[in-house]
Amino acid sequence: MQLSLHSDYALRILMALAAKGERLSVDDVARQYGISRNHLAKVAQELQSQGFVSTTRGRRGGMELAQKPEDIRVGDVVRRFENLDGFVSCFGDNASGCAVNGVCGLKPALSGALEAFLDHLDGYRLSDLVPNRKRFLARLVA
Amino acid sequence: MQLSLHSDYALRILMALAAKGERLSVDDVARQYGISRNHLAKVAQELQSQGFVSTTRGRRGGMELAQKPEDIRVGDVVRRFENLDGFVSCFGDNASGCAVNGVCGLKPALSGALEAFLDHLDGYRLSDLVPNRKRFLARLVA
Repeated sequence: MQLSLHSDYALRILMALAAKGERLSVDDVARQYGISRNHLAKVAQELQSQGFVSTTRGRRGGMELAQKPEDIRVGDVVRRFENLDGFVSCFGDNASGCAVNGVCGLKPALSGALEAFLDHLDGYRLSDLVPNRKRFLARLVA
Repeated sequence: MQLSLHSDYALRILMALAAKGERLSVDDVARQYGISRNHLAKVAQELQSQGFVSTTRGRRGGMELAQKPEDIRVGDVVRRFENLDGFVSCFGDNASGCAVNGVCGLKPALSGALEAFLDHLDGYRLSDLVPNRKRFLARLVA
């Protein structure tokens, strides 16, 4: 069980933007974390289409937060970036592939557990993930 | 984010044993669910070493539950079969690989969310996953 790189990168971009407090390019963020630019660019596009960041094109372009860090719930980011329909093979449209589909109590137990997971994350805002912006930025720039 | 096949198969073996109420071989269980015998055999060994099942060798051998279905907490099974140290790259021993390790608030947020996930599953016993043994068995035998 692993958080997808998709969510991981989404959260990293948002944290970098929250720490910086101004525009950053995908190249900047990729370099700062030492992670793949291509994957990060796809996640940045998705962050824009989900309304978490706004993007400006051009030489001085880049991303910036479209909402205040205090207003972005961590659970909402994970909800939109994790594919929870694939959490077990009986979630989503593949349920009929399992012999015990409909007579097994695992599905509601796991659904509830995932809700509890996301509910817990809803107790955190993006601002909570960057408790000290200066120290966070110092690490990114280094 | 997906439950590992390891946990999935562990739960399936335990559910089949709870429904049957007597000994089953790995071959039986693999055939009944239509899943890989080799992978299932490894999981069965692990279920034995973790004390969930006991195994008898020989022609009429097989696995049976080492505890009552009412006494096996689903959270405990998942805890022992999921590798949660790898949930994100900063868990476990790889934390130093991340630029913002120590100044980022994501790790405690995710740790707490995983606890909430497991706590929720602790509210279910193996017996809850097989609410109707006859109907469950009918599907397996079919």
